[in-house]
Amino acid sequence: MHRLLVLSRHAPAYCRLIEEARLPELEIVSATDAAHAAQEGAGCDSVLGEPSLIAQVLPQLAALRWVQATWAGVEPLLAAGLRRDYVLTNARGVFGPLMSEYVFGYLLAHERLIFSRHASQLAGRWDRTPPGSLRGKRIGLLGVGSIGADLAHTAKCFHMRVHGYTRATEGCPDVDAWFHGDDLDAFARGLDYLVCVLPHTPATRGLVGERLLRALPQHAVFVNPGRGQVVDEEALADALQSGRLAGAVLDVFHEEPLPPYSVFWRLPNVLITGHTAALSFPEDIAPIYIDNYRRFRAGEELKYRVDFERGY
Amino acid sequence: MHRLLVLSRHAPAYCRLIEEARLPELEIVSATDAAHAAQEGAGCDSVLGEPSLIAQVLPQLAALRWVQATWAGVEPLLAAGLRRDYVLTNARGVFGPLMSEYVFGYLLAHERLIFSRHASQLAGRWDRTPPGSLRGKRIGLLGVGSIGADLAHTAKCFHMRVHGYTRATEGCPDVDAWFHGDDLDAFARGLDYLVCVLPHTPATRGLVGERLLRALPQHAVFVNPGRGQVVDEEALADALQSGRLAGAVLDVFHEEPLPPYSVFWRLPNVLITGHTAALSFPEDIAPIYIDNYRRFRAGEELKYRVDFERGY
Repeated sequence: MHRLLVLSRHAPAYCRLIEEARLPELEIVSATDAAHAAQEGAGCDSVLGEPSLIAQVLPQLAALRWVQATWAGVEPLLAAGLRRDYVLTNARGVFGPLMSEYVFGYLLAHERLIFSRHASQLAGRWDRTPPGSLRGKRIGLLGVGSIGADLAHTAKCFHMRVHGYTRATEGCPDVDAWFHGDDLDAFARGLDYLVCVLPHTPATRGLVGERLLRALPQHAVFVNPGRGQVVDEEALADALQSGRLAGAVLDVFHEEPLPPYSVFWRLPNVLITGHTAALSFPEDIAPIYIDNYRRFRAGEELKYRVDFERGY
Repeated sequence: MHRLLVLSRHAPAYCRLIEEARLPELEIVSATDAAHAAQEGAGCDSVLGEPSLIAQVLPQLAALRWVQATWAGVEPLLAAGLRRDYVLTNARGVFGPLMSEYVFGYLLAHERLIFSRHASQLAGRWDRTPPGSLRGKRIGLLGVGSIGADLAHTAKCFHMRVHGYTRATEGCPDVDAWFHGDDLDAFARGLDYLVCVLPHTPATRGLVGERLLRALPQHAVFVNPGRGQVVDEEALADALQSGRLAGAVLDVFHEEPLPPYSVFWRLPNVLITGHTAALSFPEDIAPIYIDNYRRFRAGEELKYRVDFERGY
């Protein structure tokens, strides 16, 4: 018999979806906070839930063998001093379409002058200002995993040219030009849009900093639906305030909620979206646990395993 | 020797682009308004330009054999009493990508709550309201010519279900379900978005009227980047004011610019975009004339010929 601890703000929805799958030899217990999870979780060999909650009860999970995170980012479980004697899998493949809707929603809002045209309407003005177009524009993707690949595919649907920046991989057919390692200047040159979907690791921390921002054209717009820590926020604020960068759409920050004193609230060329770019919905994530449970029970390799050293 | 009259607000750009193509046996004259065109155009056998301008000089064009319109819609040339003793071709294939950017820009703005999230930002509020998604939603396309086909393709990129309404054709592989003729209720049922890209003809006039609007779900949004005359504006305003329809994004109207007294200016669930959805750019249209001129000179069938009776 296996025992699953569902530890999630959405525990009732996860329990219902997993019970409906009638997985063999699986008992399910659940909690919506860490305090209750510690007592429920003792005999559990797998845990499904939010990394921030799971990190709080890791030491109490005596029988733990596998954690399925409901997020793509698993930083809370990578903190120094936390145990790593279990298999950690994250959620992949489901956030790409949501990220594409977020990114291209804001790119098109920018090209189509959605905000200024609405201001014209409120002023009763028939606004014939010609909009821009994504056709032929260049988008640079920092990170081309499953999310970046979905963004690249959507970019091609809008006839854009795609630059991809990765550590080493070149797997995505929708990327027109690849860049790696120290090649940041060449990657950034001529971009109309820079989108960051890198995970937060020691290697990516502060990567979107002064050097990369200076290599972008002045008319470029930066979109960050990834991780706040990948951005040097001081350098970004400088670039936006001085006009060296046209605008930014920011979903994530070093500190969330963004503190009231942050300059980003007050910059007219910044849009803030409150970490909503790609929310984790039980309907999307439960099937990943269900598929992985079948592998777990059969002793097979699990999908979407995280490398603790690499951080993703 | 052939002689072309370029009659367009963008005449200099058209002349430059066509001269660069060095078309054999072609002399080019140009005008930016009808008054000058009448004297210039006498010996011209082809005309390239805006239908509204060309309609004013049609009687003076003694040698006319072919008109290449720079727009998709050619209503001004279909007016009663105007000559039809020439070949009329319009612009196709170039507006689809622009229309897709317009339509999906506003669909994504709606799903991603772009306006309300910006209002939160201005109020200094970290807004975690979950956005909607286009995935699995239903889009209904009134008209599936080259523009509708591009919209259908983009809808599939966002994992939507596509209903297509046409007179008879069923040529587009991205349409999931086809509807024709009197089948409007079945077409509209369950749609999340209704987009109208029908041409204005006697058969389409007022098609978006009370019956079609009543068949839509209450949460549906209507987008019209096509022709204002296809909409019964009174019925649409009623549906929007009574809450039977969630919203509308309107690019075109019976009267343009939209008169100051129009109720649409004041409806909070309407966005007005000033007939900018798919502007006609010489860079896109000149290649159509150039390709058709080669056919014209060779005595071949021209591309994108308009049927005067059908109206498109």
